Amino acid sequence: MNMTSAQDCIDAVAWNEEGLVPVIAQDHRSGRVLMLAWMDRSALRLTLEEGRAVYYSRSRQRLWRKGEESGHVQKLIDLCLDCDGDALLLKVEQVGGIACHTGRASCFYRRWTSASDATAASWQDIDPVLKPQEDIYGSAE
Amino acid sequence: MNMTSAQDCIDAVAWNEEGLVPVIAQDHRSGRVLMLAWMDRSALRLTLEEGRAVYYSRSRQRLWRKGEESGHVQKLIDLCLDCDGDALLLKVEQVGGIACHTGRASCFYRRWTSASDATAASWQDIDPVLKPQEDIYGSAE
Repeated sequence: MNMTSAQDCIDAVAWNEEGLVPVIAQDHRSGRVLMLAWMDRSALRLTLEEGRAVYYSRSRQRLWRKGEESGHVQKLIDLCLDCDGDALLLKVEQVGGIACHTGRASCFYRRWTSASDATAASWQDIDPVLKPQEDIYGSAE
Repeated sequence: MNMTSAQDCIDAVAWNEEGLVPVIAQDHRSGRVLMLAWMDRSALRLTLEEGRAVYYSRSRQRLWRKGEESGHVQKLIDLCLDCDGDALLLKVEQVGGIACHTGRASCFYRRWTSASDATAASWQDIDPVLKPQEDIYGSAE
């Protein structure tokens, strides 16, 4: 990735007051929305340079190469920017078919589900755990 | 929508320090990601009650019933919550097939496109304007 070019990419983003932008990761084949994460300028530059999703972890306050521990890397297929420049859409190939740290395909595995009488709606898990967390991160975590 | 039930829905969300949560709107048929917007608690409650997307506009600092001016309402099909509770995914039926205020199907119409020699990547518009803005909002806007 040409440096000048990457800078053009970064400059088009309307970074928030914390220097971050929300990023939607979507499976490029199935169209499934996998997760919402955040990037800072460095994360976006590295994503372009390395061809894989690099996010900024707000909880750990550091760059986070998606899959660095789990192996569940997201290969960059396409990058799109919205009309206001304040959100990114990353189309990815999800290695291992697991995006979520819980071992599910997508982080959006809870569905608001109404019972037939519409009085007992609740959050229901709609996705199976494909791999237990201890198998992903080791028993220490 | 039962009030107690809607409160359960709202209480599961990890609202940020501004009382907001980012919301991804996705076309329930095509799987296309349409936009990223924000909700506060009232917006989520109204979305459930009215069966249509109601967002909180950060720029206008008020509730915004998607389509209130344009007619491009988003009918609620499904609501999903992510593992951390800090992002929502709204699967919708996009009335009029236009989500973006620019008259395009999706707000994510700019694609980062590399030339074949990889030295001249740039943001390219990849979606046609389906309806000019003046036809959507009237000539006064």
